[in-house]
Amino acid sequence: MSGEASRVWRSLDASSLPQLLAGLREIRERLGGRPESWQVREVGDGNLNLVFLVDGPTGSVCVKQSLPYVRAAGEGWPMPLTRAFFEYSYFQAVAPWVAPFIPAILHYEPELYCIVMEQLSPHIILRRGLVAGQRYPRAARDVAEYVALTSFFTSDLGQSLERKMALSATFSGNSALCRITSDLVFADPYRDAPRNRWTTPQLDAIAAELRRDGALKVAAARLGHKFLSCAESLIHGDLHTGSVMVTESDTRVIDPEFAFLGPSGFDLGAFVANLLISYFSQDGHASPAAPRAEFQAWLLAEIEVFWSHFRARYGELWRSEARGDAYPTNMFEDPASGKALEIERARVLDELFGDMVGFAAIKIIRRILGFAHNIDFEWITDPHRRAHCETAALLLARAMLLSPAGFASVADIVTAARHFREHRGNGHS
Amino acid sequence: MSGEASRVWRSLDASSLPQLLAGLREIRERLGGRPESWQVREVGDGNLNLVFLVDGPTGSVCVKQSLPYVRAAGEGWPMPLTRAFFEYSYFQAVAPWVAPFIPAILHYEPELYCIVMEQLSPHIILRRGLVAGQRYPRAARDVAEYVALTSFFTSDLGQSLERKMALSATFSGNSALCRITSDLVFADPYRDAPRNRWTTPQLDAIAAELRRDGALKVAAARLGHKFLSCAESLIHGDLHTGSVMVTESDTRVIDPEFAFLGPSGFDLGAFVANLLISYFSQDGHASPAAPRAEFQAWLLAEIEVFWSHFRARYGELWRSEARGDAYPTNMFEDPASGKALEIERARVLDELFGDMVGFAAIKIIRRILGFAHNIDFEWITDPHRRAHCETAALLLARAMLLSPAGFASVADIVTAARHFREHRGNGHS
Repeated sequence: MSGEASRVWRSLDASSLPQLLAGLREIRERLGGRPESWQVREVGDGNLNLVFLVDGPTGSVCVKQSLPYVRAAGEGWPMPLTRAFFEYSYFQAVAPWVAPFIPAILHYEPELYCIVMEQLSPHIILRRGLVAGQRYPRAARDVAEYVALTSFFTSDLGQSLERKMALSATFSGNSALCRITSDLVFADPYRDAPRNRWTTPQLDAIAAELRRDGALKVAAARLGHKFLSCAESLIHGDLHTGSVMVTESDTRVIDPEFAFLGPSGFDLGAFVANLLISYFSQDGHASPAAPRAEFQAWLLAEIEVFWSHFRARYGELWRSEARGDAYPTNMFEDPASGKALEIERARVLDELFGDMVGFAAIKIIRRILGFAHNIDFEWITDPHRRAHCETAALLLARAMLLSPAGFASVADIVTAARHFREHRGNGHS
Repeated sequence: MSGEASRVWRSLDASSLPQLLAGLREIRERLGGRPESWQVREVGDGNLNLVFLVDGPTGSVCVKQSLPYVRAAGEGWPMPLTRAFFEYSYFQAVAPWVAPFIPAILHYEPELYCIVMEQLSPHIILRRGLVAGQRYPRAARDVAEYVALTSFFTSDLGQSLERKMALSATFSGNSALCRITSDLVFADPYRDAPRNRWTTPQLDAIAAELRRDGALKVAAARLGHKFLSCAESLIHGDLHTGSVMVTESDTRVIDPEFAFLGPSGFDLGAFVANLLISYFSQDGHASPAAPRAEFQAWLLAEIEVFWSHFRARYGELWRSEARGDAYPTNMFEDPASGKALEIERARVLDELFGDMVGFAAIKIIRRILGFAHNIDFEWITDPHRRAHCETAALLLARAMLLSPAGFASVADIVTAARHFREHRGNGHS
């Protein structure tokens, strides 16, 4: 895979897409009827792609196509089409373990850089549901299960070094999307970058404060270095609540175009960050008629569900499914060695927890002071109210980065989140 | 690059090699005279390759060719030819920074998997010199300089993530040689493996002791996991004293066929391990007429020279040559942030030191209890004497793995080495 634009690539539209799909027997049969009767809607609301929903008399599909530039920024910010290839390759790589948690992938069209997949319905984006104050009882647990399975089975614990190095060879081509994360997540919020924006003037002071806090920036940069150099497992790379589609009884992970071999804690941290962002943003969406206090308590409880399930499941997989080259099982067959290994498992999981805390903090900060923001805060129209919520989130993130020892368990995260929401949000807004 | 054997590959010999070289103008001119007059000697004494020295009337070259099996184990242990490609690619990748410390690469013949390079003369393998009790005043310092330059400039501190991911894409193909290291270095010595051998019966007890020491095996496996998952820089992967050629005034690193994106501490540890092995082995080579005490003191001093120079040089490069995506310089421009970054540099170097200690211990153990041994110990013909030296080395390695906190500085390594040689070698032999 090269980063060069394909010579035959053209952007699909409502007339060319049915033509393409009509040529694919399996998809034509799924949709049913004549191609002229298919309804095509372009619904992409992300930053990078065209997304079409296609409905026929007997079925439907979703089609995602790469654009050669960052959609949110316009054609002046070019972006290789190959990200569709990495999204497709990621789905192929993880499907053996997490098929129930991803859309079925029906077809990949290499020259058009487009993926035809199951249209998820009546699923909605988890983030939108949370902004509306809607509970999804399975979401956090399912995403924890998903991250446990993908991060275990694509690590050196779950697979041979030959398979892991083959994944590395493929995903090392995805540098354009790693560039985005490295710059927008780990660097720009901590330096004077033209793409940064924040609720101004309310957050001017705290933004400036963070940008001159040497210890905080060192902590951020250390995590950025880990992001670039820790090839622990095949990570999704963008696992926020906007990359999860849900119903009350079903959870699907989408949009893995940022995938590469990175630290497992990055996916964990992304999801926790977005639950925390949702938690802090609820005060901006609450009204006397529709208070959000109970919903906020539920969100915090889901963070505990998320980590607890991940921790238990990952440990269980390591005990029963370890077929990789790290910690070879036949080195630890006697009971005393097995006991030593069990202690090590706890240590490794503690380390993953620490990574999750750090990456979660980073992900919170980038959504408030960096380029790409979330509707959780953006849809709070009153800037004072928004700034109030954002400040509490920033103060939590700062504490997570500067005092990692104070976050030794998931209960510590929950307690601190509650504390900053109740007592400190006022201080800076 | 695939791992498949080339269809046109054939092993070179004294008649086919001059034919090949005669067709390469630059090399023909370097050797001079008629091809029939060139002298060809096969001198490979390693485990994996054919090595020819070719001498003509006006010049000389060295030719290294991959064999499709592990030479030391016979044709029953196949090995992809592609390792010549990785050796060549490694030299190409690091040459911009360390050209004075590697042989000049004159030609690569892809289909024969052979590299034509400068013949180093009158250089000898450092390990042989050390076994003979010969000092090389530049060696440790030069290798430290070499590791500082290669590990810095191929890391995320020294180069862009795009360049690093391109290296990763290339060297992810080198899984066959990573497999050797993962099995022979990090696993076999700690489990019942048919390829293991040791000085028996003298080391039977300590070998068994190590293989049932859960904490020790966890420490070894943790380092093995780091080896597989920490893509810190392009490492040589086999940087022992047999991969360094020296004169009193020149130092060259050879044989980088194990190269891949790994932890920088692995190269550091390999070199330190082999200085320590040399130190412990000297008692087996000493005689009343030729004592080695002063030489041993010199070896320990060179370990200090090695680390001190590496540490100073790496820090210096980080201060002046940081053009990578880790710790972006423009995040730390104000003096307070610069100070925080300087503290972080010391922390990162302390971490590298810890990695060096751990990997050094692992490398010592594998040379005494694993498959591949060193002439340092092997040339001690009296097994009691050899076991005595090997036991002291094993005890040091065990302490380094089990009590890393006791090895906080290079002086701690030196003190402990002296201690185990003087007081503990007797206990187990």
